[in-house]
Amino acid sequence: MRTYLDCYPCFLRQALDAARLAGADESQQKVVLDRVFDVLKQIGSSSTPPEIGDRVHRIVRQEVGDSDPYQAAKETSTRQALVLYPRVKALLAEADDPLDVAVRLSIAGNIIDLGPDQEYDLWGTVERVLAQPFAVDNRGAFRETLSRAGQVLYLADNAGETVFDLALIGTLDVPVVYAVKGGPILNDATREDALAAGVDQVAEIVSTGSDAPGTILGRCSEEFRHLYDDAELVIAKGQANYETLSEEGPKVFFLLQTKCPVIARDMGVPVGSIVLKQGRCR
Amino acid sequence: MRTYLDCYPCFLRQALDAARLAGADESQQKVVLDRVFDVLKQIGSSSTPPEIGDRVHRIVRQEVGDSDPYQAAKETSTRQALVLYPRVKALLAEADDPLDVAVRLSIAGNIIDLGPDQEYDLWGTVERVLAQPFAVDNRGAFRETLSRAGQVLYLADNAGETVFDLALIGTLDVPVVYAVKGGPILNDATREDALAAGVDQVAEIVSTGSDAPGTILGRCSEEFRHLYDDAELVIAKGQANYETLSEEGPKVFFLLQTKCPVIARDMGVPVGSIVLKQGRCR
Repeated sequence: MRTYLDCYPCFLRQALDAARLAGADESQQKVVLDRVFDVLKQIGSSSTPPEIGDRVHRIVRQEVGDSDPYQAAKETSTRQALVLYPRVKALLAEADDPLDVAVRLSIAGNIIDLGPDQEYDLWGTVERVLAQPFAVDNRGAFRETLSRAGQVLYLADNAGETVFDLALIGTLDVPVVYAVKGGPILNDATREDALAAGVDQVAEIVSTGSDAPGTILGRCSEEFRHLYDDAELVIAKGQANYETLSEEGPKVFFLLQTKCPVIARDMGVPVGSIVLKQGRCR
Repeated sequence: MRTYLDCYPCFLRQALDAARLAGADESQQKVVLDRVFDVLKQIGSSSTPPEIGDRVHRIVRQEVGDSDPYQAAKETSTRQALVLYPRVKALLAEADDPLDVAVRLSIAGNIIDLGPDQEYDLWGTVERVLAQPFAVDNRGAFRETLSRAGQVLYLADNAGETVFDLALIGTLDVPVVYAVKGGPILNDATREDALAAGVDQVAEIVSTGSDAPGTILGRCSEEFRHLYDDAELVIAKGQANYETLSEEGPKVFFLLQTKCPVIARDMGVPVGSIVLKQGRCR
């Protein structure tokens, strides 16, 4: 997905939030914003929002220095999600269609976003998403692709959401490779966050080799790109993965809730929708 | 009030909204944003938000050319408010304390903001504000200053809100000079908008001589500045007048609803508050 001009105010908001969370004083915050202005003046409209976001967060790290301001928030998110995991398993155990319920649970977990600044009712979200109609519903194509796949590449999103991914991974009935960020960025899951959620008990955890938001293939390790190229089915969680991979072809399936109005409009659905969308080609 | 860094994303939002309303295509919108970045890099933190906003809207006018993109929205706001005016007068007629009710009605009218992008229930707002406790309550000082004043200078805010100002002007029982913008800016009231609301029947209408948001005294005409200097009581409506005049001394009384979180924080009250606040000195 290309960057829209409507994303620009949001980049400033993100830069301020990240700088403050990293402990920046006001003059550091101003320096960060001034550098973000330069980035926004330079970028072409073909850059994806996470590519800009990556540059914004690099500026924050360079100017303020804290390499992982979201660490505490990530640990809290994972703990809160783990508390609910027995209820998640109980839902799956009594499901008539476990794959459908597991897909919805994984999408419900996507409500977790940017930790400290967002408020959400996690179990309330689970109950809503279990009953909510899909605004984009490519579940048929997803089931068909899954039935032919010998392995699934699963692109993680946020810490805490990882716990809800467990439910889906356990239901897929094929080996799963779970790809996490190569280093801390926002509240995205790293290997440590995936381990804290217990993902290693159901999948092989790999790193994308990149600490940019979403999955910017040109920034990932060669090893990960091979994995990606060889994959028959890619499950891509969350908005940033949609923003970076929306035109990478029909083997990619995006599972997410639309929380950003620009992404929702790009998809042609309202904010607050649940989506299982098959990727398109360029 | 100084400009906070939290205002920066909002300046981009305003620039985009104004450029689009003026009919800018995407490349014009990008040029506008690039020029706004330059302004934001240059400004000192002592500038008030309306001073920056003024520069933002000048850029939009220079790049896109429509000098009054809010004209239709302003006419609609005035018409909608006039429909309610008989009910407003009836409320005043049956009031035990007409001045208190009139102050509240004037503040209720301040819900009208930026026309097309905002949704509000005008009569619902009247009913809420009639019962709502003041978050800042300098009504005592206001009554006292009013009792000694031979004339009131009333700084208008938005078109449509003008109709609710009528109610207060008619209750003040002293001659009122009603100051409007010298040219179109956002949905701020100009002479034409004040005339459409019928303000000329209860007050003398004057121009500030400036088409900047709020009241930037250094940008107003000499004639207006004399009026301002000589005034014994100034009623200043709306957020932009607070942003530009908050430290211009105790003869200024701000009547507004807090709609912006940065202004609300500056005042130490929640968003959605009603405020009658006496100005302070520098």
